[in-house]
Amino acid sequence: MDVASVLRMNGGTGDASYANNSLLQQKVLSRTKPIRDEAIRSFYKEKLPKSLAIADLGCSSGPNTLFMTCELIETVEMLCRELSHESLEYIIFLNDLPGNDFNNIFKTLDCFKQKLSSHVLGGGIGQCYITGLPASFYGRILPDNSLHFVHSSYGLHWISQVPKGVENNKGNICMGRTSPYNVHKAYYNQFQRDFSLFLKCRARELVEGGRMVLTLQGRRSNAPSSNVCCYAWELLAQALNGMVLEGIIKEDQIDSFNIPMYHPSPSELELEIEKEGSFTLNHLEVFEVSLKAACGEDKLDINNSDGYKVAQLVRAVAEPLLVSHFGEAIIDEVFHRYQHVLADRMSKEKPILLNFAISLTKTTT
Amino acid sequence: MDVASVLRMNGGTGDASYANNSLLQQKVLSRTKPIRDEAIRSFYKEKLPKSLAIADLGCSSGPNTLFMTCELIETVEMLCRELSHESLEYIIFLNDLPGNDFNNIFKTLDCFKQKLSSHVLGGGIGQCYITGLPASFYGRILPDNSLHFVHSSYGLHWISQVPKGVENNKGNICMGRTSPYNVHKAYYNQFQRDFSLFLKCRARELVEGGRMVLTLQGRRSNAPSSNVCCYAWELLAQALNGMVLEGIIKEDQIDSFNIPMYHPSPSELELEIEKEGSFTLNHLEVFEVSLKAACGEDKLDINNSDGYKVAQLVRAVAEPLLVSHFGEAIIDEVFHRYQHVLADRMSKEKPILLNFAISLTKTTT
Repeated sequence: MDVASVLRMNGGTGDASYANNSLLQQKVLSRTKPIRDEAIRSFYKEKLPKSLAIADLGCSSGPNTLFMTCELIETVEMLCRELSHESLEYIIFLNDLPGNDFNNIFKTLDCFKQKLSSHVLGGGIGQCYITGLPASFYGRILPDNSLHFVHSSYGLHWISQVPKGVENNKGNICMGRTSPYNVHKAYYNQFQRDFSLFLKCRARELVEGGRMVLTLQGRRSNAPSSNVCCYAWELLAQALNGMVLEGIIKEDQIDSFNIPMYHPSPSELELEIEKEGSFTLNHLEVFEVSLKAACGEDKLDINNSDGYKVAQLVRAVAEPLLVSHFGEAIIDEVFHRYQHVLADRMSKEKPILLNFAISLTKTTT
Repeated sequence: MDVASVLRMNGGTGDASYANNSLLQQKVLSRTKPIRDEAIRSFYKEKLPKSLAIADLGCSSGPNTLFMTCELIETVEMLCRELSHESLEYIIFLNDLPGNDFNNIFKTLDCFKQKLSSHVLGGGIGQCYITGLPASFYGRILPDNSLHFVHSSYGLHWISQVPKGVENNKGNICMGRTSPYNVHKAYYNQFQRDFSLFLKCRARELVEGGRMVLTLQGRRSNAPSSNVCCYAWELLAQALNGMVLEGIIKEDQIDSFNIPMYHPSPSELELEIEKEGSFTLNHLEVFEVSLKAACGEDKLDINNSDGYKVAQLVRAVAEPLLVSHFGEAIIDEVFHRYQHVLADRMSKEKPILLNFAISLTKTTT
């Protein structure tokens, strides 16, 4: 599987689109606002820039895409007013893999800019220029010293490829609590390579003193068993394994399917940051989000609503990966079963996702 | 008609897509390569930059989109080798209106970068970062002093809106040779406002000494009758007027339809450049391209081939404008008739398009 060409959130604005199934990611974004605010205020006060270049890595395509841009500009403009400074110029690089639905974002830009200009900039003194930047963030995406602020929310638990040597990860479709030791090790090594490369590239792209706020799913400790985030994949594996038993999917098709996602522990994150050496870790915050956060408030159908909504959430994120491996034909059936597996389990327990938000400063050149 | 939200080349890769009907624009690009080469070589030798920020305004979506990028980088890298200098970093801003099919461009980027890296950069020493920049170039698109080189080919004969007060442009769908004086004046005033704003914005965005190469269709002299470029629109009007006579289209529908395009004369261009004052005009080249250039070499169907190909060329460019005014239903019929009108006329004469390529240097700040 060539992850860079297969991985993308479902495009468009249909029922299974990411645009219509990203309430969970929205809650996470709202939860981490104070960390971004602190970082950008502190950068501004230290450097007093006339313009800000900001990149959102893994921006996806939907209502969340411009959320961070809007609140960050609002924060800086408020600060400028407090200090009686003039408005800034902003250039925003919306980054995601080339398969992301950028057209869908671009269609909403005029409306976004008008809103921004009237609400935040109060008459359009400052200017905001928005670009799409299609490239893998596990590689260079912009010239040296071209960024002041990097943001990424829910992008960095995706790794650049399914690690080699995980053929014996039977019954699982990701690094799960019951995966053999070598699978864990292979996933961990891939995470180390990827995250370290990520830091190296951003260190080149950020100016001295530039800031980076990253949010990703993780696990509590180094023990694989502390991974609560793989819940959704474990239940998806259960739905798929049911289809193997009924002969709809072949067993070796499941054995060869693995999701390119890794949930690091806090110390695994800290170790890579320390080893790479270009960043100071200012802050690491651990917080939980209930999977029910994906479900919103409107519960018309008591029995199926939550299961359906979580299934749609996962479908919006994972459908292109599943289609590329299993084909289109079985997808509706997979998610139909998944919905019921989820509804059953969620009626008995309250699954949570563990998240880390880290705030970093680029210190050396 | 809100031009910024309606005007776009046909997206995708289908029969009537711009991607498959842009051979004429490709010939024009090839024809103007020496002018771009001279401009970028001269800029490089004067400034010796470590990185180059280049914008292509009205980049569209098809094989031509990355053509300029590729040859410009090739030219600079060749020069670097001649001078034993190191490779540069490039950031490319592909600009077009937000309705442009950016997804289609982005899908081809990996392939383009690989080709560029192996053929031009010879081992990938230099890096090329490519972004999409959805915005009207009749307004600011990037921060102050952020560009070294601006290019636009076949974008600037499109004006930002159909001018007001052209209700009496009967029988025409653009400023034609037979349009009344007030129509010509209204179109000219719109061109003056637009081109002057274009220059003002680019003057802010380009660094001191930055270069700009612009190619657009034009007419020989200030006399409206010297406009050979409106040929394609005159014949499209003929097809539409035929449908009015048969009651398929209402007369007032045609009377209220006008294409937002203006073909300036050389002196009209020079006057605006002089009035705006930020640029030195280094070079203005006038050249003709035969409309047959749109037709390529493969002529399987002697009778219809050229008519069909020119009709498809115009359809790829104008379909979204026509659909927004007349609706989808009549479009196939319009272009079916247009094809025959074209075939008939092209069998009797050899229509040409007149083009200007101008090379400018930003001189004052």
